[in-house]
Amino acid sequence: MGEFTELATQVMARCETLGDLSQDPQCLDRRYLTDEHKLANQLASGWMIEAGMTTWQDAVGNIWGRYTSSVPNAPRLIIGSHLDTVPNGGKYDGMLGVVAAISLVAMFDGTQSRFPFHIDIVGFCDEEGTRFGTTLLGSRALTGQWQDSWRYLKDVDGISLEQAMTNFGLNFDAIASAAISRTDILGYLELHIEQGPVLEQENLPVGVVSAIAGAKRFNLSVEGMAGHAGTVPMSMRVDALSAAAEMILSVEHISQHRPGVVATVGKIVNGPNGVNVISGRTTFSLDIRSEDDSLRDTVLTEILQSFDHIAHKRKVGLAVEQTHSAPAVHCDQNLKQALVDGVQASGISPRVLASGAGHDAMAMAEICPVAMLFTRCKGGISHHPLESITLEDVAASLSVLHKTISGLKHN
Amino acid sequence: MGEFTELATQVMARCETLGDLSQDPQCLDRRYLTDEHKLANQLASGWMIEAGMTTWQDAVGNIWGRYTSSVPNAPRLIIGSHLDTVPNGGKYDGMLGVVAAISLVAMFDGTQSRFPFHIDIVGFCDEEGTRFGTTLLGSRALTGQWQDSWRYLKDVDGISLEQAMTNFGLNFDAIASAAISRTDILGYLELHIEQGPVLEQENLPVGVVSAIAGAKRFNLSVEGMAGHAGTVPMSMRVDALSAAAEMILSVEHISQHRPGVVATVGKIVNGPNGVNVISGRTTFSLDIRSEDDSLRDTVLTEILQSFDHIAHKRKVGLAVEQTHSAPAVHCDQNLKQALVDGVQASGISPRVLASGAGHDAMAMAEICPVAMLFTRCKGGISHHPLESITLEDVAASLSVLHKTISGLKHN
Repeated sequence: MGEFTELATQVMARCETLGDLSQDPQCLDRRYLTDEHKLANQLASGWMIEAGMTTWQDAVGNIWGRYTSSVPNAPRLIIGSHLDTVPNGGKYDGMLGVVAAISLVAMFDGTQSRFPFHIDIVGFCDEEGTRFGTTLLGSRALTGQWQDSWRYLKDVDGISLEQAMTNFGLNFDAIASAAISRTDILGYLELHIEQGPVLEQENLPVGVVSAIAGAKRFNLSVEGMAGHAGTVPMSMRVDALSAAAEMILSVEHISQHRPGVVATVGKIVNGPNGVNVISGRTTFSLDIRSEDDSLRDTVLTEILQSFDHIAHKRKVGLAVEQTHSAPAVHCDQNLKQALVDGVQASGISPRVLASGAGHDAMAMAEICPVAMLFTRCKGGISHHPLESITLEDVAASLSVLHKTISGLKHN
Repeated sequence: MGEFTELATQVMARCETLGDLSQDPQCLDRRYLTDEHKLANQLASGWMIEAGMTTWQDAVGNIWGRYTSSVPNAPRLIIGSHLDTVPNGGKYDGMLGVVAAISLVAMFDGTQSRFPFHIDIVGFCDEEGTRFGTTLLGSRALTGQWQDSWRYLKDVDGISLEQAMTNFGLNFDAIASAAISRTDILGYLELHIEQGPVLEQENLPVGVVSAIAGAKRFNLSVEGMAGHAGTVPMSMRVDALSAAAEMILSVEHISQHRPGVVATVGKIVNGPNGVNVISGRTTFSLDIRSEDDSLRDTVLTEILQSFDHIAHKRKVGLAVEQTHSAPAVHCDQNLKQALVDGVQASGISPRVLASGAGHDAMAMAEICPVAMLFTRCKGGISHHPLESITLEDVAASLSVLHKTISGLKHN
């Protein structure tokens, strides 16, 4: 990987530079349609031009660069990720995929490598959805999934999406022009940090994504009977929090025994939540994910049955409300194999793993084959200033992408 | 109990009258040193005078009435409870004990019954501690447990206890004169609603209190590792909320098997508490009570050992902070027996039970023998507008107190 070390150094330095562009001086926070979004696009555009690309900003605010094909009427290979961040985020989630692609193209340009397809790099303007509470705005504009009702989405300051677009120099009513034709796309490749601890645990620099897990989410509400912590004997209690605790443990127990599924209770709100009051009502969330929708639903059924059983046994009320449902998105067999070949050609043991987090590739799968490469990150930490990757792992990632794209050339 | 029905009707009507005296027009809320405190004292004082008593307000704001003994230098039998309420409280918690004692004295006065002891009725000004965050202010002034540092306690509006006393017409620096001599007190009797469901469950109108449970309280803090709900495999998680859930169930499990102890986790706060984030830190409260301090501490040790075991097994951090400790207060054997005799003389099956809630009798036990009688309340509900008792149970309570006090006459 020694030949990619210099390029990796450039990638790391550019992630630092982007990491300094923040609307909040205290931490990294770069949201859609802000001045810092504009500056990030300008930076990326400059680097693209240096890399021999022609650039443009589309109608939703994504920044694009094209490394033009050597043949007329060539299809496009799109490589990208996002340039926005969560509040108090890290400097690799999203940015790595955009910056690494630009550096790779610069290398191709330096060696005068030309391809039978355009290499189109996209820096998506909104994946995290932090400003308007709706995710994947950038990639969903491309795929024609944009909703007219989003016009009225508001940020915390009460500014509507439509107004924010106008302020930025865009036009909500021209958004349809951001959509791209699905007929001439070879595929979409995305490099992203893993955001999980599996590669670190297995001592691997990169991994190939099999699928982006489908997720379902629920709000559960347990109704017990509040009472005085001193005066109600244990045998006469209908304690909502104890019932919820038993349900939370059953989520853990059931999913621990079903590989390929993760289930999480991340949120709990208890009432009246007084030190000396028996809990009368406890609500909690359930998030369940798998790359296998049918396995996920089987385990979900098992969990909900166990909730019913616990509620019945403890005589508490239980209300179940589904708040989210998305099917798994499977990566394209051929593109995935191309990445696996790239991993092996780089002398790395190929590891295929599911992505538990959502990515722009989920939206892109609507219109073209997609595949993703993960870079190991320290401690599996993301969405946090402690997000960290190594120069060596970036070099490995660049090597894999270089060999993968070069391999596609000969297909 | 028919002979007490008329008196009980008066008691119920007076609880209604007091229940209308509120600083909040939306609900019953009557706190220490308010205009409504003053009005409640005036009402009680008027009823006491009607009952043939002489009245005074002491230096802390308790209202007193004396039904003078027939013998010179007689000791005092103190009967009382409190006239303050919690916000959105009920109209029997506290008030019942004051109003019932006044009506009883009126009955004694009507039948020209005289006793070899003064009957001193006290309406305590602050038991709930709602205004200044410190409980039993009224009874602790009597027993000499008042602290000079309380001068600086502030209410939600920033008014100090000292200033509020001045505004009310009292003088913080004269508080010592509220303390009473322990040498001439026969004992302290208190009638109170049960605030629990035991008497209702056992179909009994009244019960005699064995002891006021001692309580210990703790804050527990479980430290896990926050992570992405989609990307961290179940086997690699250190989920603080799941660990806390297991601890909460162990509290329930251990205390369910140890009669005489109640243990409650009433409060839980989880962080970061996001639907899609594995819990990194969960704090929860533990409240444990028993009339037997040594049994309570044995069970507590068992619970804390189980917490340690769970923390060790799950590799979470655990911090334990004790926030409160009070020993059990045992009722006086002779006074308690006098109440049991009164219950039997009223044709009721005597039931002796512990009080899980705190009462003015806890403070009074510092200076004299104490005993308490509980009146059944609907659903065990207290500190709530739905607090409810029946005319029949009030009549039974009056009958028991009448027979008990008459019995003391002959000792």
